[in-house]
Amino acid sequence: MDLEDARLTIVGLGLMGGSMALALRPRCRELVGIDSNPETLELARRAGITTQESDPAQAHTDVLVLATPVKETLRLLEAFRSDPPAVHLLMDIGSTKRQIVDAMEMLPSRVAAVGGHPLCGKERAGFAEAEAELFFGSLFVLTPCSRTTPSSLALAEQIVGALGASVRQMEAARHDRLVATASHLPYLLATALMRSAESVGGKDPELWDLVSSGFLSTSRLGASDLTMMVDILTTNQDNVQEALALAQSELEQLRELLVGGEIGRLRDYLEPSQLRRASMKNPGGSTRGA
Amino acid sequence: MDLEDARLTIVGLGLMGGSMALALRPRCRELVGIDSNPETLELARRAGITTQESDPAQAHTDVLVLATPVKETLRLLEAFRSDPPAVHLLMDIGSTKRQIVDAMEMLPSRVAAVGGHPLCGKERAGFAEAEAELFFGSLFVLTPCSRTTPSSLALAEQIVGALGASVRQMEAARHDRLVATASHLPYLLATALMRSAESVGGKDPELWDLVSSGFLSTSRLGASDLTMMVDILTTNQDNVQEALALAQSELEQLRELLVGGEIGRLRDYLEPSQLRRASMKNPGGSTRGA
Repeated sequence: MDLEDARLTIVGLGLMGGSMALALRPRCRELVGIDSNPETLELARRAGITTQESDPAQAHTDVLVLATPVKETLRLLEAFRSDPPAVHLLMDIGSTKRQIVDAMEMLPSRVAAVGGHPLCGKERAGFAEAEAELFFGSLFVLTPCSRTTPSSLALAEQIVGALGASVRQMEAARHDRLVATASHLPYLLATALMRSAESVGGKDPELWDLVSSGFLSTSRLGASDLTMMVDILTTNQDNVQEALALAQSELEQLRELLVGGEIGRLRDYLEPSQLRRASMKNPGGSTRGA
Repeated sequence: MDLEDARLTIVGLGLMGGSMALALRPRCRELVGIDSNPETLELARRAGITTQESDPAQAHTDVLVLATPVKETLRLLEAFRSDPPAVHLLMDIGSTKRQIVDAMEMLPSRVAAVGGHPLCGKERAGFAEAEAELFFGSLFVLTPCSRTTPSSLALAEQIVGALGASVRQMEAARHDRLVATASHLPYLLATALMRSAESVGGKDPELWDLVSSGFLSTSRLGASDLTMMVDILTTNQDNVQEALALAQSELEQLRELLVGGEIGRLRDYLEPSQLRRASMKNPGGSTRGA
C-alpha cells in the first residue's frame, strides 16, 4: 500500500501529532485526528484537520499513529491486545522505545506494528505549536519488532520520507541507551540549572536580570512538557540513572579540579570537549550567549 | 568629556573588544585597536579599524578599554601601578569583577577607573565573530570603585548607551556571586554533558547521530573559549564552587527521585522550574529541540 492511497488516523494532536497531521494531510488519501481535549480538536479543525472523537481501536483507517505521551501509548497498546485495530500499519512516535516495542510484541500477530521516534521537537507543547516543517531534515528512528511486516515497514518509511526526515533503523534497547545521554540527560541538567537559579534568585532576585543567552540556551529544555518528560524518565529509568551518574561524576571531577586550582589540569580536562563542541553545529542558527 | 570628542583605545580585539570597536568607531573622535596577534590586527584593519602595536600604558588616548581575558587584564593593571596611562577613563569588560576592581584600587589615585561586564557574547571567539550589534538590548554591568570619578562614570555610561546596551550598577562581590549561577554554572553543566557524551559516544559513536537541538542547546556553552573560561573560573572560584555544589545537590535529589520511582514527587520537584522556564524567553528566537 502506498501512502497516497492510505487513510491515516493520528491519536494525539499535540506538538508532534499535530505537526505530523499538518505535514501528512496533503500526502495521503484521508487523514483524521483524534484527541481527548476539545480545545485541541477545535484548534486542529481550524487548521483544516478532520477530527473524530472515536475509540482509536474502532477507527476505519489504514495507518494508526499513536502520538500520545508514552504511558498513554502503553495503555492503548494494552487495550489493543483484546481489541486490536484492523490496520495495515500501527506505529507510535514515543521518545522511549523498549516498553512500547515490548507491548507491540504482545499484540495479536495479525497487527503489523513498528515503533518510531522522530528526533526533533520543541520545548513548547500543544497543537498551537505544531508546524508541518517540524521534522524536516531530522532523523526518525524506527524500531522494528517481530510484529513488523516488510510492507508495514515500507509504509512507515514512506511516512518518514513524506515528513522530510530520514530513517534510521535501530534496536529499541540501543535507542533507549543512547537517547538517555543525547536527550534525557540534557533535560535533567537544564532542570538542575533552573532549580539552582531558583534557589539563588530566591535570595537575590536580581539574578534573573543577569541571565543572558548562555543561561537561556542551557536551561531551555527545562520548559519541556511535564507529562511527556515524566513518562520518558520513568520508562527509561535504568539508562537515565546511568547517564545521570556519569554527569555527576564529571561535575565532581570539575569540582576537584577547581578546588585543586591547577590550571593546567583544568585546561586538559576542558579541552577535548571544547574542541568537539566547537566542531558541532548550533541549534536554530543562533550562536550568541557566552 | 563627551564620547564624540574622545579618542578610544581598545586593548584586545577578540569577539568582545572587536565588537566594541566596530560599534564605537562611528561614535567617537578616533578609535585605535591594540592586539598581540598579527592575524587579528589584519582582520581588524580589513574591517576598517585603525590598529597599533604600542604599549597600552603609552597610548595617547582619552579612554582605554581592556578587552583581554581576565588574567591578562589583571597583569596590565599590575603594570599600570608604576606606569599608569594618562587617560580620562580606564575600563575593562572582564566577566569576573572582584579581582579586577581590587587591582583598580591599587592604581595611582589620579587614574579614573571603572569595571564593566557586558552580559552578552557568543561561544565562538575571535575578531572574525565580532559584530557591532552584539551588545544591542543587553545589560552592561558597571562596578564603580573608589577610583571611579563622576565624569569617568558618565563617560562609561555614554559608551554603554552607544553600544545599545543598558547600564546596571552593581558591587563587584554581588556581581561575581550572581554570575556564578547565571553564567559560569551553565558552562560547567554544558561541559559535563559534553564529557558524558564523549564517554558514551566512545563506546557507541551512533550517539552523535542521535543528538538533536535539545542536546545542542544544552551543550552550546561547552564550545566557549578555553583561556577566557579558565580565567573566569579561577578568578571566581569560591562562588563557582558554591553554585556547582548547589547543582550537584539538585542532581542528587533528581537521582533519588528517579530511584524512588514516585511519580507524584518527581512531578512536584520538576514543576516549579518548568513553569518558571516556560515563562522566560528563548535565545535567538529558536525554540525547536525537545
